[in-house]
Amino acid sequence: MKRHTISVLVENHPGVLARIAGLFSGRGFNIESLSVGETEDPTASRMTVVVQGDDPILEQVTKQLNKLVDVIKVSDLTKEDFIERELVLIKVNADGRSRSEIVQIATIFRARIVDVAPKAVTIEATGTEDKINALVNMLKPFGIREMARTGTVALMRTVR
Amino acid sequence: MKRHTISVLVENHPGVLARIAGLFSGRGFNIESLSVGETEDPTASRMTVVVQGDDPILEQVTKQLNKLVDVIKVSDLTKEDFIERELVLIKVNADGRSRSEIVQIATIFRARIVDVAPKAVTIEATGTEDKINALVNMLKPFGIREMARTGTVALMRTVR
Repeated sequence: MKRHTISVLVENHPGVLARIAGLFSGRGFNIESLSVGETEDPTASRMTVVVQGDDPILEQVTKQLNKLVDVIKVSDLTKEDFIERELVLIKVNADGRSRSEIVQIATIFRARIVDVAPKAVTIEATGTEDKINALVNMLKPFGIREMARTGTVALMRTVR
Repeated sequence: MKRHTISVLVENHPGVLARIAGLFSGRGFNIESLSVGETEDPTASRMTVVVQGDDPILEQVTKQLNKLVDVIKVSDLTKEDFIERELVLIKVNADGRSRSEIVQIATIFRARIVDVAPKAVTIEATGTEDKINALVNMLKPFGIREMARTGTVALMRTVR
């Protein structure tokens, strides 16, 4: 089992997301993270899917994805040198005593405070999955109230 | 037609994403953006879905979502005061002449250069959808080679 980051460029049609998600789950893949957003082309969206799976089965899924009429391009970025990032919003308990320590942790992780209340702060951070996990672990002792992670997006590194 | 940001807390089971995406597309909603990631609870994921739709139809969808066995909680954040952010990676043409102007634009948007090559730079930026759109518009004249947006994640603002 290996972690794969799959980038799928699709036409913006209703139902395409459900079909692609169904294709992964039909093969028993649990999608670890998924994100869909606009691209440089207004008629297309880019889906980035992170799954755990065996190479041969994933190759089958990639072939089936390529056959879907709304799919423009599928790339398994795991084979390339790529940049990946995700975003997280974390609402953590913070009072007068703990706030400054939390702000310091945020600074170390180049994260930003985006909301503050008497007993909580909300932090926005970006990074690789590992970096986000490390930040989450540092904040856990304070009590995480809520958290929303975007899932990974990725682009190939350029040499030219 | 109104833009709605829906936050759905779900159990981590294969197929749940396909079922939820199918529910939206079955009603003719085109999902503008969607992101799925881990939460404070390792057995649950949070999906944030941005859709355009009429209030009464969306209320029906919300009711149907609540009936799905893997759905823990559905919130229409549009009714609340909430923080929303998305992340974008943009690979833009940049040579010796244009690079400094691009870096300056990135700085204004508090974005970060995450990769550089002789003829391209890759920028990571976070913000609301409007802010990301503004950055994309500023970079378009240089030539955007590739772009990946995560879709929005959102948390309610806290008063306590």
